Amino acid sequence: QLSGSPFPELSKKSCIPCNSKDLHAMSEDSAKKSLEQVTGWELKNEGDILKLHRAWKVKNFVKGLEFFQLVAAVAEEEGHHPDLHLVSWNNVKIDVWTHSVRGLTDNDFILAAKINELKLEGLLSKKKATSHE
Amino acid sequence: QLSGSPFPELSKKSCIPCNSKDLHAMSEDSAKKSLEQVTGWELKNEGDILKLHRAWKVKNFVKGLEFFQLVAAVAEEEGHHPDLHLVSWNNVKIDVWTHSVRGLTDNDFILAAKINELKLEGLLSKKKATSHE
Repeated sequence: QLSGSPFPELSKKSCIPCNSKDLHAMSEDSAKKSLEQVTGWELKNEGDILKLHRAWKVKNFVKGLEFFQLVAAVAEEEGHHPDLHLVSWNNVKIDVWTHSVRGLTDNDFILAAKINELKLEGLLSKKKATSHE
Repeated sequence: QLSGSPFPELSKKSCIPCNSKDLHAMSEDSAKKSLEQVTGWELKNEGDILKLHRAWKVKNFVKGLEFFQLVAAVAEEEGHHPDLHLVSWNNVKIDVWTHSVRGLTDNDFILAAKINELKLEGLLSKKKATSHE
């Protein structure tokens, strides 16, 4: 297996439509368990809403927007859209959550896994990303 | 005059390099006065740092990224980069401030005025933007 993800099964799945009545936000315990499948992501609780968060440091502002374009291609394909932030000119921060259930679903972990598989060569800075600032 | 800005003089200026030792954050009073020159923007105080903030609702996620590309062209030209946020798939939120002085300078109002002059036809939703959520 050539790809970098240790959890190929998750990144091979597709998001299911979020308009299902049966869709509920998962518990924090379930989220913590699923988190093991998406390297680099962390849980954050924002206004009592559980979200997946990851930060990257890019080489510059324009590279940050190139990163966003790669994420957008995945998001459009899945019909599931993360929150994108480009702050202090070279910090990309992404929050993935399911707005309709105000929390996390399997879809979010699928999207995070797919974002982890993006080819970011040439975009990232060698400096370490800072998640919180 | 065909352009939409009632303050053409500000949008015609260029940002000055921020590495000057003489550059200081302006007072809140000065900021409130300068705010009259940038229609649609508001002041926000975040962690004791004064920032210019404006929100737009775009038609969809991809249009939001097209918006970012237009902003990036201005930001690169000025060498002054705002914080960009695309949240809940169609809400573009932009913060403009001068990181090196942890506050606002004339540069920020110049950049805001230039962002106001961008041609956003075809990108914006007819729904009203929500600044805070």
